[in-house]
Amino acid sequence: MRSYNRYYNELRPVEIIAGYNKHAEGSCLIKFGETTVICTASLDEKVPQFLRNTGQGWVAAEYGMLPRSTGSRIQREATKGKQEGRTQEIQRLIGRSLRAAIDLKILGERRIIIDCDVIQADGGTRTAAITGGYIALCEAIKTMIHSGIIKRSPLKTQIAAVSCGIINSKPLLDLDYNEDSKADIDANFVFDGFNKLIEIQATGEKTSFNEEEFSELLKIAKEGTQKLLLKQRETLKIMS
Amino acid sequence: MRSYNRYYNELRPVEIIAGYNKHAEGSCLIKFGETTVICTASLDEKVPQFLRNTGQGWVAAEYGMLPRSTGSRIQREATKGKQEGRTQEIQRLIGRSLRAAIDLKILGERRIIIDCDVIQADGGTRTAAITGGYIALCEAIKTMIHSGIIKRSPLKTQIAAVSCGIINSKPLLDLDYNEDSKADIDANFVFDGFNKLIEIQATGEKTSFNEEEFSELLKIAKEGTQKLLLKQRETLKIMS
Amino acid sequence: MRSYNRYYNELRPVEIIAGYNKHAEGSCLIKFGETTVICTASLDEKVPQFLRNTGQGWVAAEYGMLPRSTGSRIQREATKGKQEGRTQEIQRLIGRSLRAAIDLKILGERRIIIDCDVIQADGGTRTAAITGGYIALCEAIKTMIHSGIIKRSPLKTQIAAVSCGIINSKPLLDLDYNEDSKADIDANFVFDGFNKLIEIQATGEKTSFNEEEFSELLKIAKEGTQKLLLKQRETLKIMS
Amino acid sequence: MRSYNRYYNELRPVEIIAGYNKHAEGSCLIKFGETTVICTASLDEKVPQFLRNTGQGWVAAEYGMLPRSTGSRIQREATKGKQEGRTQEIQRLIGRSLRAAIDLKILGERRIIIDCDVIQADGGTRTAAITGGYIALCEAIKTMIHSGIIKRSPLKTQIAAVSCGIINSKPLLDLDYNEDSKADIDANFVFDGFNKLIEIQATGEKTSFNEEEFSELLKIAKEGTQKLLLKQRETLKIMS
Amino acid sequence: MRSYNRYYNELRPVEIIAGYNKHAEGSCLIKFGETTVICTASLDEKVPQFLRNTGQGWVAAEYGMLPRSTGSRIQREATKGKQEGRTQEIQRLIGRSLRAAIDLKILGERRIIIDCDVIQADGGTRTAAITGGYIALCEAIKTMIHSGIIKRSPLKTQIAAVSCGIINSKPLLDLDYNEDSKADIDANFVFDGFNKLIEIQATGEKTSFNEEEFSELLKIAKEGTQKLLLKQRETLKIMS
Amino acid sequence: MRSYNRYYNELRPVEIIAGYNKHAEGSCLIKFGETTVICTASLDEKVPQFLRNTGQGWVAAEYGMLPRSTGSRIQREATKGKQEGRTQEIQRLIGRSLRAAIDLKILGERRIIIDCDVIQADGGTRTAAITGGYIALCEAIKTMIHSGIIKRSPLKTQIAAVSCGIINSKPLLDLDYNEDSKADIDANFVFDGFNKLIEIQATGEKTSFNEEEFSELLKIAKEGTQKLLLKQRETLKIMS
Repeated sequence: MRSYNRYYNELRPVEIIAGYNKHAEGSCLIKFGETTVICTASLDEKVPQFLRNTGQGWVAAEYGMLPRSTGSRIQREATKGKQEGRTQEIQRLIGRSLRAAIDLKILGERRIIIDCDVIQADGGTRTAAITGGYIALCEAIKTMIHSGIIKRSPLKTQIAAVSCGIINSKPLLDLDYNEDSKADIDANFVFDGFNKLIEIQATGEKTSFNEEEFSELLKIAKEGTQKLLLKQRETLKIMS
Repeated sequence: MRSYNRYYNELRPVEIIAGYNKHAEGSCLIKFGETTVICTASLDEKVPQFLRNTGQGWVAAEYGMLPRSTGSRIQREATKGKQEGRTQEIQRLIGRSLRAAIDLKILGERRIIIDCDVIQADGGTRTAAITGGYIALCEAIKTMIHSGIIKRSPLKTQIAAVSCGIINSKPLLDLDYNEDSKADIDANFVFDGFNKLIEIQATGEKTSFNEEEFSELLKIAKEGTQKLLLKQRETLKIMS
Repeated sequence: MRSYNRYYNELRPVEIIAGYNKHAEGSCLIKFGETTVICTASLDEKVPQFLRNTGQGWVAAEYGMLPRSTGSRIQREATKGKQEGRTQEIQRLIGRSLRAAIDLKILGERRIIIDCDVIQADGGTRTAAITGGYIALCEAIKTMIHSGIIKRSPLKTQIAAVSCGIINSKPLLDLDYNEDSKADIDANFVFDGFNKLIEIQATGEKTSFNEEEFSELLKIAKEGTQKLLLKQRETLKIMS
Repeated sequence: MRSYNRYYNELRPVEIIAGYNKHAEGSCLIKFGETTVICTASLDEKVPQFLRNTGQGWVAAEYGMLPRSTGSRIQREATKGKQEGRTQEIQRLIGRSLRAAIDLKILGERRIIIDCDVIQADGGTRTAAITGGYIALCEAIKTMIHSGIIKRSPLKTQIAAVSCGIINSKPLLDLDYNEDSKADIDANFVFDGFNKLIEIQATGEKTSFNEEEFSELLKIAKEGTQKLLLKQRETLKIMS
Repeated sequence: MRSYNRYYNELRPVEIIAGYNKHAEGSCLIKFGETTVICTASLDEKVPQFLRNTGQGWVAAEYGMLPRSTGSRIQREATKGKQEGRTQEIQRLIGRSLRAAIDLKILGERRIIIDCDVIQADGGTRTAAITGGYIALCEAIKTMIHSGIIKRSPLKTQIAAVSCGIINSKPLLDLDYNEDSKADIDANFVFDGFNKLIEIQATGEKTSFNEEEFSELLKIAKEGTQKLLLKQRETLKIMS
Repeated sequence: MRSYNRYYNELRPVEIIAGYNKHAEGSCLIKFGETTVICTASLDEKVPQFLRNTGQGWVAAEYGMLPRSTGSRIQREATKGKQEGRTQEIQRLIGRSLRAAIDLKILGERRIIIDCDVIQADGGTRTAAITGGYIALCEAIKTMIHSGIIKRSPLKTQIAAVSCGIINSKPLLDLDYNEDSKADIDANFVFDGFNKLIEIQATGEKTSFNEEEFSELLKIAKEGTQKLLLKQRETLKIMS
């Protein structure tokens, strides 16, 4: 039996509270079941070195976990003095995914930083971060237009992401931590608003997989993402 | 006019949601007005080197701020590769304060780590962290007793803390960020459950101060803390 | 025109010199065209903390680039004091991929570290590292059997990897640096010796992609990997 | 019996050798009994980022201990790769305290760095550092006036500091290491030249304390500081 | 019996492959017996702070060892987060030695970075790095002249280096690892193209030494270096 | 005219105050003219990994400079987060030199750490550190014998060091900072108590040098060191 009594191709309950943070240009708290992530979007007038004097902007992401967001406490990266490989891998994925939402020329020579901080982890933190990061990004764009920083929206498309995996030969959508730790194959899919692919990451550490298995995962991921895209649109409608 | 229409000696609305985190042995979300801190208490069976084989335990604290908990984004300490001096100063204060609540011999050779992560900052984050950290600590003690790890409670007293300051020669309790940045004198007081002092930190960076001014601050701090101690007792009653 | 006058679905010339390093338990120098990587496999009798007393072993990878392996010199990570996110992402991928080749229980409580150091980069360094890392791993296993450290081989399957991408709507196998920098879609595929999938990473930073495009990439990657698997088998035959 | 045969409200012998370092704009060696600190003041024409183009200057402090300044050798922070929390807490205190001596507008957009290095520690290193740092600061101001860098002195007041504590319910002034390690309450007071308060830090890690106890500490600290202020004035008179 | 059946005053076989790296302005792979080092020279248009606006250039060196260049794997300095003392000592020696080859005024305000990466270590890595670094430097100068960056060559002289030592009272030239670990006295000599000395480093950790012993080492080092200088000239002739 | 009106082959006034630090097993303050270094010797019951269970001990050194020991303030290595290459080079030299004084088997499986902290720098800090470090080491040995930790002295010989150089073709002994910055050739010599060589470091960054020039340096260094060895013996006589 899956958590929340779900079918194999169902998402956990999704909750998005936009405008969660009073300081940030954009923000939300997003929940995929018990996985809880705070996403903020901050405007920074400086771009990375390689974009100086190009007229083009950037979207970057940073990801962190509160030490006790997990079952057993993990050491704070600030005391360790460095970010783990997993952290860097995830924040690079979030950044790449959300840059796909934005026309960087229209954004102009400025940077939006998406901070995704996991308050509570129960599987799917990176896909929740991408899905919630998109909402924070939209709100920041709105703020920037209202304050006259940019004239028109650089948003090209929506972005949402979902995880899935195969357990005992069965494909399952939106794994919680318990499922994730038992999965033979583990995959994350990022889609845009036209339901086209932005990123695929599929790993078979316990076993290899074939094209058919991969196709099944892609299929349920695509369906699940459509629901996330819908939820995002509802959230943004309320905001505007 | 002060925020929330307060008198000089009034606290902002205080909200404490105990058991905020499903993984931690103890946890709460605490709000002093718009200042929001998540406190978790984690049990660690290892003690610091200097306590090995002494039969005595330890309470340590770590403090962090989400990058966009503040008006302008601050760099993530995990990417900077080190904790700032201010962070270390604060987490040492929290640790010292909460150790005063505990009989370390009864706790036995184990460590409780209090993580205080600021979700949103609006002045008084360290005093909110101490006050909320105490709730997380109590809940962790309860968990440890229920699971048979310890037989009786090592709790000796309650601990709560409040900030205050002097602006234009007037003492003010529980400064928000706007007040804090204008304060001539800035002080933090930590009290125990018998309303005795645990720690005083008072600084006059803009101007010096005399004993009378200090006494006034101490007076309103003591009154304010009594309300926090009451609020803590109410929270703990609901929990039990 | 592609480098080496290749068709869209052809690999660059592949060269593998096994036993390149006199000290390591296993090693090779591998070339994919002008991309040159030295792979060594080192036996370490200690396993990571989470595997202590489980009887199970581990395979880990580390990746580095010589400062002038690239067109413009990159700062040495040792002087920077940390490994970049890209480095960590790649070494995690290599480690995951090569662990799929090994029965970790048969390996026993010891660790094999695969070091992949890029001498010269021209696209595809991570796939060359995985393909060459497999050879180093095999040689190390052989060394361990000869010296009586293990009784039977923990090798379950072969592992090889290839990159591909889409440029101007055309799928291309084994991109060199020049192609890679122009690719709309960029993908890396890791296969095992039965031509089943171990890992997929596909990214569309410049544009999104659909299932048909992805299928074409998968198809040429599969064909290309078969040639790499053959080349590996030839190399291993000479070694034995 | 206290060291140097002192009454509860007496300081250890204080020695200040101004101009101890031939390179620094200002310097002294200060001794509180066996506690020995070298303080230097260095002029730096750059101010921190947040003061650029404000016309205002800054006073910052750094604190260090020689590895064998203490009973058992402590690890060199330079080899550890970071400053401990205690170090940062202390150098922030020294900096805040000495800034109170200076009109930062008159100083102009430049920075004075006070380095306090403990040659031998026997309790009270931070208060010796503040008291000696003030002498180094004065000498640096004099140097700057002589060399025409500033026209008039930005000095507003004197600054001196003393520690005290409660052992077995008795207040004691200027604790040596032996007393410090037995103290129930431990406090540091910083005063200006008008005997007004600049900073109070009082901690009761072993036990809580009440207002009366605190008042007694404040009283002996005030008296002790008056003697330090006098000693500073004598030293400065000789210098000029 | 020495490796390669050598007399006490003979070098191991020396091999230099110039132009080993396709990206660098200059490069070579150099072998002293089984010791293998890749040297690259990279042009950097920025000079260190202390040379800004002096019209003068700089030559700097960095040194690294692949983790398994040695008999037992050494930890990667990039994962350790810092360069070892030995690494820094060696790269400072290489930089000093090669700066002696160059008229820094003719070079102009730019920097050449010599990266020396040890692929396989068997004694004498620092002297191989200096000898090979000189070849990379020459090739880079040639590249800079061809591309019009500089008008005339800043090369003043050749630079080559060799190690030697005393084992059982006998002087030996060009120690391999096995000899190095048994040597009583260990010395490195750097000579210029006129066979004059640039640097001497001689250490007697196991025993002290007298002038006569030192003179014998100097004598065989001088002879050995003449052969290296010849080898360099042959290599450079082929290059031009 | 040289400082202190010296001939080319004369030392600056040397002052050694043994027992300068009350905590250390051994210590001294040593002055070579205005160069001032505090040396302490600390006993550590742990040896480095590679000596565990060998019955053999170790002597290690650490070197540091106070930020304002120099003409312009240098950044504190503890805030920089790492030791500079120069620091590491020097402390390795001090350690190697002082190990030559000790029979490590008689010392037994323990470590003596020599900390050399430069209070004021005016040329020759590393040679002052070696010469003073020897005194601290002797005092620590005496302390260890008195307290019964070792039964007989592991001291084999005396160790002293001196710098010299060539300016305008003239050899000069014991360079001060002003001379050092003008020297064409710069050399450091470490001798033992029998006036035999322990270490030679000679560098010609501005120009090359020949055997005759080197011999002259060696000659005056040897004479100068004899005076230092005498001074050490006088100091140790007073101590005992």
